[in-house]
Amino acid sequence: MNITLKQAEAVIASAKSKAIELNTKMNICVVDSGANLVAFARMDGAWLGSIDISLKKAKTARFFDMNTGVIGGLSQPGESLYNIEHSNGGLITFPGGIPIHDKNGVIIGAIGVSGSSVENDHTVAAAGLDAF
Amino acid sequence: MNITLKQAEAVIASAKSKAIELNTKMNICVVDSGANLVAFARMDGAWLGSIDISLKKAKTARFFDMNTGVIGGLSQPGESLYNIEHSNGGLITFPGGIPIHDKNGVIIGAIGVSGSSVENDHTVAAAGLDAF
Amino acid sequence: MNITLKQAEAVIASAKSKAIELNTKMNICVVDSGANLVAFARMDGAWLGSIDISLKKAKTARFFDMNTGVIGGLSQPGESLYNIEHSNGGLITFPGGIPIHDKNGVIIGAIGVSGSSVENDHTVAAAGLDAF
Amino acid sequence: MNITLKQAEAVIASAKSKAIELNTKMNICVVDSGANLVAFARMDGAWLGSIDISLKKAKTARFFDMNTGVIGGLSQPGESLYNIEHSNGGLITFPGGIPIHDKNGVIIGAIGVSGSSVENDHTVAAAGLDAF
Repeated sequence: MNITLKQAEAVIASAKSKAIELNTKMNICVVDSGANLVAFARMDGAWLGSIDISLKKAKTARFFDMNTGVIGGLSQPGESLYNIEHSNGGLITFPGGIPIHDKNGVIIGAIGVSGSSVENDHTVAAAGLDAF
Repeated sequence: MNITLKQAEAVIASAKSKAIELNTKMNICVVDSGANLVAFARMDGAWLGSIDISLKKAKTARFFDMNTGVIGGLSQPGESLYNIEHSNGGLITFPGGIPIHDKNGVIIGAIGVSGSSVENDHTVAAAGLDAF
Repeated sequence: MNITLKQAEAVIASAKSKAIELNTKMNICVVDSGANLVAFARMDGAWLGSIDISLKKAKTARFFDMNTGVIGGLSQPGESLYNIEHSNGGLITFPGGIPIHDKNGVIIGAIGVSGSSVENDHTVAAAGLDAF
Repeated sequence: MNITLKQAEAVIASAKSKAIELNTKMNICVVDSGANLVAFARMDGAWLGSIDISLKKAKTARFFDMNTGVIGGLSQPGESLYNIEHSNGGLITFPGGIPIHDKNGVIIGAIGVSGSSVENDHTVAAAGLDAF
């Protein structure tokens, strides 16, 4: 099963509402279960460099079916996945990417958010999932 | 001046309506005047390979401020811009990319559409501009 | 608003004067508000490897609208943006990149300088902004 | 021997004068004998996609020590260098790139120009060499 465009647009709308509430400007990206882009929105004035980061967060979250921040803990110097960011054309492993499951727990995609602190990025990504 | 997210979403909605009317499944992409991504939507079941093509069409249209198909006519064997597609990390020069102007004729971005015949791609891209 | 070529050339001339004063050989790069190259100069004998670094510094400064060194503090092991350099085709996050604002505070581009110590790189980049 | 920055800036100034005379907006690039960037200028409003093309034209001219258009004749379907554009991270083989020699006939660099018809591009590049 894959996330539909309608679902992805609802995820982005929900994330965008939270971003506005937090007074942030976000790049918001949704990929499907194949880690391929479904929908994207850059809020006016959001960082240009965060376009690619939001995409890489969404892909990273789906590549390993976990929150990006979890991988970031394992990719530090001396840790088991040190510098895993070199794979797959570049990963982003700090918070802001979250897998999306359907009501049966099956992964149907992922969301990636970038444009503020990593705490805000994660909060906005999590808010995107409230659309379900 | 740059296209706003609100404008870009209206462009995508207008293009999507035309795509449905034509019974096609499209990838639709909008970039700003700096050729940076603003909004994207992949309709359910649209070709995966057209994600990148729609992005490259939008960028190509803004890179040269003309419809992508015009460049494609000039990049044929024996023509003046033969193999221009090797520049800029890859261009797409068949129809489906169109610059977007504001009411004063200033370029504020571009749309790129991919997922069907190039005639349909161009028709859907042109329909996106009807949002203005 | 975008920086003009005339302004960019003045920025480079100002930076170059400072580089000569410091007895350094610099690569100096200016991008516009879309992070696209406007002007570049490599002083005779400057490091070849710094061509790309100066460009990446300018882009990084515009991508996130802050001095590159600020990002470098956050991208260290254990910090919130660890390994952000893997995004956007490669970022440079040590000092030498600075956003350029117009008199109203709107970002119109960025300068990137590379060729000496990062302290000198930053000093020369800052001198470039004195052109305004 | 390598072209100096002072010489490269004179080449760009000369090319720019011709571009203005022709009422064109050009991207003008100069590389040294190692095919590494020395100086670059994008005239206000010049095509964004021509940044990379001007750079690739300059590199291509120095890579093979001939005008880019000559290579373009040989890279056509059925010709001896068919699709040589796939090498070196992308070549541009239509007119607008010209090697630069010192007064002894030694190659010291190359100029690449992009932003108009290939005839205008070549004319402006040739005007750049008048600086010598």
